Amino acid sequence: MVQVPRGTRDFTPEEMVKRQYLEQAMTATFSSFGYQQIQTPSFEHVELFTAKSGDAIINELYAFTDKGGRQLALRPELTAPVIRCYIERLQMEPKPLKVFYFGNCYRYDRPQKGRYREFQQAGCEIIGAGTPEAAAELLALAYSLLQNAGLQTIHLNIGNLTLVKSLFKKLRLVHDDQKTLLPFIDKGQFEDLKVALRDCGVSEQETTTCLQLLQTPDLSDIREFLRGDTEAEKELSVMETILELLQNAFAVKDYSLKLSIVRGLDYYTGMVFEIDAPVLGAEKQLCGGGFYELIPLLGGTAVPTAGFAVGFDRTILALEAEHFVFPASRLDVYVVPVNPEMVPQAIQIVQQLRSTGLSVDFDVLQRGIGKSLKYAAAKQAHTVVIVGPKELENNSVTLRDMDTGAQQTMAISALQTMLDKK
Amino acid sequence: MVQVPRGTRDFTPEEMVKRQYLEQAMTATFSSFGYQQIQTPSFEHVELFTAKSGDAIINELYAFTDKGGRQLALRPELTAPVIRCYIERLQMEPKPLKVFYFGNCYRYDRPQKGRYREFQQAGCEIIGAGTPEAAAELLALAYSLLQNAGLQTIHLNIGNLTLVKSLFKKLRLVHDDQKTLLPFIDKGQFEDLKVALRDCGVSEQETTTCLQLLQTPDLSDIREFLRGDTEAEKELSVMETILELLQNAFAVKDYSLKLSIVRGLDYYTGMVFEIDAPVLGAEKQLCGGGFYELIPLLGGTAVPTAGFAVGFDRTILALEAEHFVFPASRLDVYVVPVNPEMVPQAIQIVQQLRSTGLSVDFDVLQRGIGKSLKYAAAKQAHTVVIVGPKELENNSVTLRDMDTGAQQTMAISALQTMLDKK
Repeated sequence: MVQVPRGTRDFTPEEMVKRQYLEQAMTATFSSFGYQQIQTPSFEHVELFTAKSGDAIINELYAFTDKGGRQLALRPELTAPVIRCYIERLQMEPKPLKVFYFGNCYRYDRPQKGRYREFQQAGCEIIGAGTPEAAAELLALAYSLLQNAGLQTIHLNIGNLTLVKSLFKKLRLVHDDQKTLLPFIDKGQFEDLKVALRDCGVSEQETTTCLQLLQTPDLSDIREFLRGDTEAEKELSVMETILELLQNAFAVKDYSLKLSIVRGLDYYTGMVFEIDAPVLGAEKQLCGGGFYELIPLLGGTAVPTAGFAVGFDRTILALEAEHFVFPASRLDVYVVPVNPEMVPQAIQIVQQLRSTGLSVDFDVLQRGIGKSLKYAAAKQAHTVVIVGPKELENNSVTLRDMDTGAQQTMAISALQTMLDKK
Repeated sequence: MVQVPRGTRDFTPEEMVKRQYLEQAMTATFSSFGYQQIQTPSFEHVELFTAKSGDAIINELYAFTDKGGRQLALRPELTAPVIRCYIERLQMEPKPLKVFYFGNCYRYDRPQKGRYREFQQAGCEIIGAGTPEAAAELLALAYSLLQNAGLQTIHLNIGNLTLVKSLFKKLRLVHDDQKTLLPFIDKGQFEDLKVALRDCGVSEQETTTCLQLLQTPDLSDIREFLRGDTEAEKELSVMETILELLQNAFAVKDYSLKLSIVRGLDYYTGMVFEIDAPVLGAEKQLCGGGFYELIPLLGGTAVPTAGFAVGFDRTILALEAEHFVFPASRLDVYVVPVNPEMVPQAIQIVQQLRSTGLSVDFDVLQRGIGKSLKYAAAKQAHTVVIVGPKELENNSVTLRDMDTGAQQTMAISALQTMLDKK
């Protein structure tokens, strides 16, 4: 028997209800922020991903060759494809351009708990606006996206890679040193970082300061240390404006400044951020993003770009962990013709109810009332309409409320109004 | 510069509006018919597709090997994956089970006009109901799906492979002959069919009868010819009931009986159908389906199954060809702070409007009123809200109707009500 490929998943109707809910909720929030949806292909030229992420990514790609001998790969992420699409199709659009998207991504690694070879991401980019207003709005959007979806407890951590790079410069750390240190910072492994800093020749006192600054929630500590670095001072003022707007204009108050949010050193620049759902424990990061430079690398004209990605699967896990009540997928009406002669009239009632948008099904197997009621209960139908010959003579049917079990006879003409009220 | 892979497409915001519209319209119709959405992975084990379609399909597959040495392929169609999912996950669900889905499919051939290497399909299956009621409802669903989406002129052609096989039997045609003839029948190439029938040893008189029966809209002609074939006679009664229900109970009157609708000989059984959009000319088929046998082939317990697939891309082409007016994607409100001091208040207004579901953007670049109005016009904003110091002193803002150009001053507290009415 052929099975679902290892590391991939089928989604049953029950699971799809959750996914449809989340996609709709996210679409509503993206749209309310003036973002427009786009879509790119499931696979791209391999060079697109190596240009962004380096050759090491090739081992994580599902790659294949097309009939023209082109090296293609299923996309491991969505930002590079979206920026490629921007350069090819959207570069002349009025700026800022705000786009969002949903898409499956593919990672060719060993499947683990909560990690799949095919997984869905949501994301967005704002292209052509690098102001503090744009930055603060991006943070507010990411926060609202998860909050509006129904999450109770999320936490926003904001970092800044320009400041981290200034810190590294002040500590006289060369690029290779920085690359070595970054994973420790990213994972918050500060004991390991301490050792690594010493190995890089950083004094004990400076190491202490560095660790403190990577964890301080206070911009003024950082300002003090980086005084005289004009680029850092300018960036600090930008960060102050961003946080001020975020807190007072966008009313997002539950955030932390955290320079240890570093993400990618070569790719990101300026403000970066992550949003966690503490309910998920170790694998708690739902969202990550910031300002980055990718357009010139892919052959476009440099403009400020920022964006973020949200793990769709992990957001559903977080909602489930918080016992979020997803909208139920119930059948509105199940119609039962009591004998074969009733079938045409039953269908006419079914079609009339469907035309108003109700979800309606009927007994196509002529199983009789007992089995039909059982089936309707399994499908969580709200109401069963029984079409019998005696009632039909009076243009009536029998209505059964499946929650209470109450039955009543009702004129067919009144049925619609009755059901609409439910 | 890296480009979109040959044979694939990016969808810009303008194109996505159409796709979102169609997906929502189809989802609403599927749901009203009591169908529930499911989703399967983008790739499957190669055996799944060769089991359904034979080894020849391998040349059309995007295939690759996973880390466990498994032969995988991007799905070329959705029915086999859905039936695999049914067997693995849903076989114990109450019957009939009604599922629908959207999904990208992949075909590894030379790109041509209107044919893409990645394309979207919609489809559904009803599992566990082989009655005329189920058949007629499936036809009505396919018809409603396209009609409710906004198509003005579609035509439903209904065939029956049990009857075609009886016809072949009566003409003493062996299986290999049938395979040779089928493509001519499928493409309506009746002159070529005539020659082929003669080559198969069919007499001139029987050839004439065969051609006439493949084109007759009248079941009684077919009944006459197949008299004495009990299986055919039974199937003719079933077809009569299906057409009777379709026309009188489901009120679908625009259909033709057409035995030359043959689709796949080994796969389909009983009723089959196709829906065309004549506006599309030669490539007019939007939808095809019928009853088929696939579950036992994939290792499940045999139950009646029927379903259909709809070409999503081609349905959009048909809507465009009919000049269907897709819903516009306009920005509801664009907010312009006239100077930097107005930014926090402007953002508060923006956030308040967004919280009610309106699509709202604001000038994050502080470009001033002239440029902002130009940007708002490009984004087809309904309304521009100008936040200036004088008006703000009176808790007011200036509202500009972008369609008429009319401006008025309005209290911030009244803004919401005013905009909701638009």
